[in-house]
Amino acid sequence: MENSRPLDALNAARNRRVIVDLKNGKQFMGKLKAFDIHINIVLEEAEEHENGSLKRKLGVVFVRGDTIIMISPA
Amino acid sequence: MENSRPLDALNAARNRRVIVDLKNGKQFMGKLKAFDIHINIVLEEAEEHENGSLKRKLGVVFVRGDTIIMISPA
Amino acid sequence: MENSRPLDALNAARNRRVIVDLKNGKQFMGKLKAFDIHINIVLEEAEEHENGSLKRKLGVVFVRGDTIIMISPA
Amino acid sequence: MENSRPLDALNAARNRRVIVDLKNGKQFMGKLKAFDIHINIVLEEAEEHENGSLKRKLGVVFVRGDTIIMISPA
Amino acid sequence: MENSRPLDALNAARNRRVIVDLKNGKQFMGKLKAFDIHINIVLEEAEEHENGSLKRKLGVVFVRGDTIIMISPA
Amino acid sequence: MENSRPLDALNAARNRRVIVDLKNGKQFMGKLKAFDIHINIVLEEAEEHENGSLKRKLGVVFVRGDTIIMISPA
Amino acid sequence: MENSRPLDALNAARNRRVIVDLKNGKQFMGKLKAFDIHINIVLEEAEEHENGSLKRKLGVVFVRGDTIIMISPA
Repeated sequence: MENSRPLDALNAARNRRVIVDLKNGKQFMGKLKAFDIHINIVLEEAEEHENGSLKRKLGVVFVRGDTIIMISPA
Repeated sequence: MENSRPLDALNAARNRRVIVDLKNGKQFMGKLKAFDIHINIVLEEAEEHENGSLKRKLGVVFVRGDTIIMISPA
Repeated sequence: MENSRPLDALNAARNRRVIVDLKNGKQFMGKLKAFDIHINIVLEEAEEHENGSLKRKLGVVFVRGDTIIMISPA
Repeated sequence: MENSRPLDALNAARNRRVIVDLKNGKQFMGKLKAFDIHINIVLEEAEEHENGSLKRKLGVVFVRGDTIIMISPA
Repeated sequence: MENSRPLDALNAARNRRVIVDLKNGKQFMGKLKAFDIHINIVLEEAEEHENGSLKRKLGVVFVRGDTIIMISPA
Repeated sequence: MENSRPLDALNAARNRRVIVDLKNGKQFMGKLKAFDIHINIVLEEAEEHENGSLKRKLGVVFVRGDTIIMISPA
Repeated sequence: MENSRPLDALNAARNRRVIVDLKNGKQFMGKLKAFDIHINIVLEEAEEHENGSLKRKLGVVFVRGDTIIMISPA
C-alpha cells in the first residue's frame, strides 16, 4: 500500500470488515460501506462490542465521525 | 444497498423507525423524519430509553447532531 | 408533518411551549421564540427544571446551541 | 417581544443586568455591554456567584462564548 | 466604556494587568500584550495561580483561547 | 532539521515508525503512511499499547486526528 | 517586546526552549521549531514531564494544537 492521504486507506477498506473504536470505549464491527471527510461512516452487518463481548447486532449503522478514535480492517 | 456516501444511508432510513444512541448514554427511538449535514435529526413518535427501559414518550423531537453516536434502523 | 429539514421542525414549534434537554442534565421549559442554525434559542416564560422539579423561573432566556441535546414540543 | 433571531434577544438585554450560567457550574451577573456571534460577551459591574453566594466582584469581564450555557435578564 | 463589540474590551485592557480564568480551574495573571479573534492571548510578567496561591512565575506566556473562561482587568 | 511548518515534521516521519499518544491515554505505534491537515493519520504494522504493554496488533489503522495528542518518531 | 498578535510571541520563541502545558495535566519541554495557526507545534530535544519529574525523552515531537493550554519560553 502506498497511500499519500488517510482517506485512501478508508477507501481501500470499503466493503471489507472493519473494527471501529469509539471514544466511549465501545467498538463497532461491520462491513464498511461509506465514509465522508468528517469520518462519518456506514457499516453493514454491524455488531457492537464492549469489553470484548458482543452487545448488540445492529444491521446497518450510521456512525458520526466525531465519536470515532480509529478504524482498522478486521 | 450500494451507498457511496454516509448520508445516503440516512436518506434510506427516512420515515422508518430508527435507534439513536447519544453520547450521554441515553437512546432515542422514533421515526426518522429529517436530517441535515450536521446530523441534526427530527424523530416522530419518539421515545427516550435508558438502560433498556422506556423513560419518556416525546412525540416530535429535534436532536442536535453533535450529541449523537450512531443511528440505525430499528 | 412532512418536514425535509430539521430546522423546519423548530419553525413549526415557534411560539409553542417546548422542553429543552441540556448536556449538563438540566432542562429548560418555555415558549420557543427564536432559533438559528447553531441551534441557539430564545425561550420566554422559561423555567429551569432538574430531576423533574422546578429550580428557577427565568423569564426570557438565551440558550447557547452547543449545550442542547434535544428540543421537543411540550 | 417578537424576535425572530436569538441575537435580537441579546441586543434587547444590552445595558441591562443579566445572569450568565457557565458550563463549569458558576454564574456571572452584570450589565451586558457587548456580545458577538460566538456569544463572547462583556459584562460591567460583574460578580461571580457559586452555589448562590457571591464569590468575587470583578468589574469588567470578557467571557468566552463557548463557556456559556444561558444568558437571562436579571 | 461604551463598547459595542467584545474584543473592544480586550483592546482597552491591552498593556494592563488582567486575571485569566482557565477551564481547568487554574488562573493566569499578567500584562495583556496581544490577543486575536480566537481569544489566543499573550501575557507578560505572567503568574499561574491555583486555589488563590501563586504556583509559578512564567514571564511571557501564550495561552490558547479555547482554554479560557474569562479575562478581567486586575 | 529546519522546518518552518509543523506538517513538515510529519512529512519527514513518513514511512518511519512513530509513537502516537491519544487523548484517552492509549498509544499507537506503527509506520506512518499518511496524514492530512486534520492530523488524521494512517499507520501500518500498528500496535496499540496501554500502560506500556502491548494490547493489540492491528495492521493498518486509520486514526482520527482529533483523538491525537502527539506524534513522535520512535 | 511590542507584539500586537499572539503568534508573534510564538515566532519570537522559535528555536528557543519552551514549556508546553497540556490539557491532560502533562508537560512538554523542548526547542520550538515550528507552529501554525491551529497552534500545532513541533519541538526538538523534547521531554515529557508529569508532576514535575521527567517521564520520557522524545526527540522530535509534533503536538496537536487543541491539546495545548499554554506555551512559555523556559
